[in-house]
Amino acid sequence: MYSNIHMPRGFKCAGISAGIKPGGVNDMALILSETPAAAAGVFTTNQVCAAPVRICREHLLHGVSRAIVMNSGIANACTGSEGMAAAREMADATAKRLGCEPQEIFICSTGKIGPQLPLDKIVPGIGTLAGAADAESVQETAEAMMTTDTRPKVSVAEIKIGDAPVKIVGFAKGAGMIEPDMATMLAYITTDAAVEQSALQTALKRAADKSFNRISIDGDQSTNDTVLALANGAAGARLLNETSAEWNSFSQALETVCFELAMMIVHDGEGADKFVTVNVKGAASDADADLAARAVANSMLNKTAWAGTYPDWGRIMDSIGYSNARVVEEQVDIFYDDTQAVSGGCQSGVAQEDLIKVVSRSDFAININLHLGEGAATVYTCNCTEEYVRINC
Amino acid sequence: MYSNIHMPRGFKCAGISAGIKPGGVNDMALILSETPAAAAGVFTTNQVCAAPVRICREHLLHGVSRAIVMNSGIANACTGSEGMAAAREMADATAKRLGCEPQEIFICSTGKIGPQLPLDKIVPGIGTLAGAADAESVQETAEAMMTTDTRPKVSVAEIKIGDAPVKIVGFAKGAGMIEPDMATMLAYITTDAAVEQSALQTALKRAADKSFNRISIDGDQSTNDTVLALANGAAGARLLNETSAEWNSFSQALETVCFELAMMIVHDGEGADKFVTVNVKGAASDADADLAARAVANSMLNKTAWAGTYPDWGRIMDSIGYSNARVVEEQVDIFYDDTQAVSGGCQSGVAQEDLIKVVSRSDFAININLHLGEGAATVYTCNCTEEYVRINC
Repeated sequence: MYSNIHMPRGFKCAGISAGIKPGGVNDMALILSETPAAAAGVFTTNQVCAAPVRICREHLLHGVSRAIVMNSGIANACTGSEGMAAAREMADATAKRLGCEPQEIFICSTGKIGPQLPLDKIVPGIGTLAGAADAESVQETAEAMMTTDTRPKVSVAEIKIGDAPVKIVGFAKGAGMIEPDMATMLAYITTDAAVEQSALQTALKRAADKSFNRISIDGDQSTNDTVLALANGAAGARLLNETSAEWNSFSQALETVCFELAMMIVHDGEGADKFVTVNVKGAASDADADLAARAVANSMLNKTAWAGTYPDWGRIMDSIGYSNARVVEEQVDIFYDDTQAVSGGCQSGVAQEDLIKVVSRSDFAININLHLGEGAATVYTCNCTEEYVRINC
Repeated sequence: MYSNIHMPRGFKCAGISAGIKPGGVNDMALILSETPAAAAGVFTTNQVCAAPVRICREHLLHGVSRAIVMNSGIANACTGSEGMAAAREMADATAKRLGCEPQEIFICSTGKIGPQLPLDKIVPGIGTLAGAADAESVQETAEAMMTTDTRPKVSVAEIKIGDAPVKIVGFAKGAGMIEPDMATMLAYITTDAAVEQSALQTALKRAADKSFNRISIDGDQSTNDTVLALANGAAGARLLNETSAEWNSFSQALETVCFELAMMIVHDGEGADKFVTVNVKGAASDADADLAARAVANSMLNKTAWAGTYPDWGRIMDSIGYSNARVVEEQVDIFYDDTQAVSGGCQSGVAQEDLIKVVSRSDFAININLHLGEGAATVYTCNCTEEYVRINC
């Protein structure tokens, strides 16, 4: 699927089975830069947060990084001081193997909350990964990140900085905001562009806000969510910061990669078979628009209605009403794609069949106008089927 | 089921089929007091709210009431000025039939959001109800309130005020916070006690906060939620207010009736077969405890885990972490009934089988201690099964 994709210059990657998950599936991955890369990171805001997230936050202060090492199967969350020690050991072992400082290593874990990491499998796994890493193992790397994901997730962008072609390759995993035994949305962005660390952090934060932070599958927020970006400058292009002529072009490409990965996560939502875009405009503020869009996207009654090909706009009105956004019922218009269901808070008179036609699509939008101001927001979500319950119970 | 229950003195009730719902099921109810009764009400806080709720709020200002008339099948929500006119007509027709003022009539509707009320069925229905009303039709009345409810919900309490025996009879409906085509939690409390209106309002608000406002089935809040209490004084006991010697006894009985009805609603949760009590203590404040308890109760991942008899305490830790309550991960203890799953934020070491034993029960508690203060809260909820999705799609 991604076997033709090469990593950006100066990057290698590998995905292997270290025996953490049963069945010999890939469960450890390594992404490494041959030279120190400028690093940026965005992490879960959950107060209960996994040991590897704590280590990543600490190591991000160092500003440059050589590698990301990760395992799936076990989240190393709620594991206390033993879990912190195991996370440090995972970084130390990788640093030793690559000949760098532990602070130059990011570590991530995803999987079951509670159990301790099996270091007797992880440490040998790091050796195997370092030996196997090359520029072509994109597919194996993306596979090793998967938990309930049904497919690996990779996105690529190429731009020019001056005359130098620059590449961005992004990896992601995630299918529930938290998954069955597992947890987490993870994304890693690698680029051979040269980027000042603080500019990279700003660009990554903005890109995450417009992509990963705009999707919702089940409204649950993981203990392990992590987005990392590494820029190693191996393309030989000039160093970028926010004042560079090419800054827009680079940050736009970064946003595109993050956005594509985020959309892949929603498309792979646990048990989901419909992709739904919730657009709210005319809100009193952007924050209000966001509240309304999230209430609609997270409502179990909306998500099950979409699963049933059931255009129940009353449930959408209801969610807007309790969203804490300012709403004047008599002002609300709601469209399913271009078909108007609600006009001034009441049914538009459109034929039910026309609405059913839209909700039958595998990809449609709920377009809401609150007619109160200029605030707008979009949230990307999916339907909730019986399969979601089966996966999670 | 409730055929042996008589209404409090001076109250009559009836439930009939007016042909609003198919199949000849009961779909209209009347509860009337022979004399004007002190009235209290608590309503949805949803900004999108149904016409009958608006009329109830207006009529509650009058302070005394003769009757509650309701229909199921159609919610009369998002119906604009035509819906408001229909709701007024429903009150006017009832007032005319009973020989009182329209302000003395409460009206309620529950069912599909969007369509207009069929007044050609409602108005004749009111005549039939007034003719049929007696002290014994408790079962029929409770049945007429049902939408996706699988059983009618009635609770009774009897106390003495001085020498006078006083009775409280409460009715409720609700199975999802919003249901399939339908909406709403409704509850009506009747008593032959004599109670000052402002005291009744205070007592009802407090009772609702401890009962109906502490349950959660799917986290969605209806456009039509309404709790009404009527006290007509027909028992001949002395007038109660908050300074009366018997006030505690009366308000306690009122709370018990509301609590029993609320528990019936959770037990009848759409598709649910497990009743789960979430207790949080040791929070920095009661408000924090409430945030944590609601996050645990509303998490789809917790609700599906309970459906799967799967004691996944990691999901509970995760929900607490994103709840916005103050949480120090290393302090958290979690018990399934009396079996400790989490100690100081990590697994307690208890055998998984012992936890499975608890989650297999049809009624169990999640007991959480945050060890940060004196704040405490309880939320009553249920599991989420595939059946919930089937009902709502």
